[in-house]
Amino acid sequence: MIEPEIIKGHVTQLSAELRRGLIVLVVMSQLETREYGYSLLRKLEEKGFELTQDTLYPLLRRLETQGYLQSDWIIEDARPRRYYQLNELGTAVSHALRTDWQQQLNVIKEIIK
Amino acid sequence: MIEPEIIKGHVTQLSAELRRGLIVLVVMSQLETREYGYSLLRKLEEKGFELTQDTLYPLLRRLETQGYLQSDWIIEDARPRRYYQLNELGTAVSHALRTDWQQQLNVIKEIIK
Repeated sequence: MIEPEIIKGHVTQLSAELRRGLIVLVVMSQLETREYGYSLLRKLEEKGFELTQDTLYPLLRRLETQGYLQSDWIIEDARPRRYYQLNELGTAVSHALRTDWQQQLNVIKEIIK
Repeated sequence: MIEPEIIKGHVTQLSAELRRGLIVLVVMSQLETREYGYSLLRKLEEKGFELTQDTLYPLLRRLETQGYLQSDWIIEDARPRRYYQLNELGTAVSHALRTDWQQQLNVIKEIIK
């Protein structure tokens, strides 16, 4: 019988690997409407998906570099906020990625059931 | 209107990222029974999950180094085959990872629906 704590330690790392690939899917899905970094983090947290700023901001920069996002500084509550939203390419890629994900999911469900 | 071919090119890379984290889950789920590399590849391919030897073999070595697998050479059809199977720790980790995955999945389904 292996201690639950030991198993948990092992699963934490593997679980993070699983999650890593999903972050792009999740973040893109939320940027069909305009969001700034902090609002996006809160929104995901409320839905049970915790993400740190250290993960989110580099990802937003990467998605912008890849040409999927447009971003704008907007002064709000007397401070500048950088808002992000998918552009036309980003929206098309996000939808296609979601379809791809559903297909992968169906395959995997069959395999691990 | 963006060309479907262009979108496909973009999705391929992101889809590979999604898939990468899932490979461990999938491979571990199949090693509750003893398999050798080639039989495992064929089994997954039949179920629609394509994996190359270049991905599988390093993963099997890694899982063995992490202490999840036992492996044995067995002479079969006049050639040696290395068979892999989850040991007690690997089985416990595989089950816990699957539970974790189901939980992640429920969260993500809500987010991207």
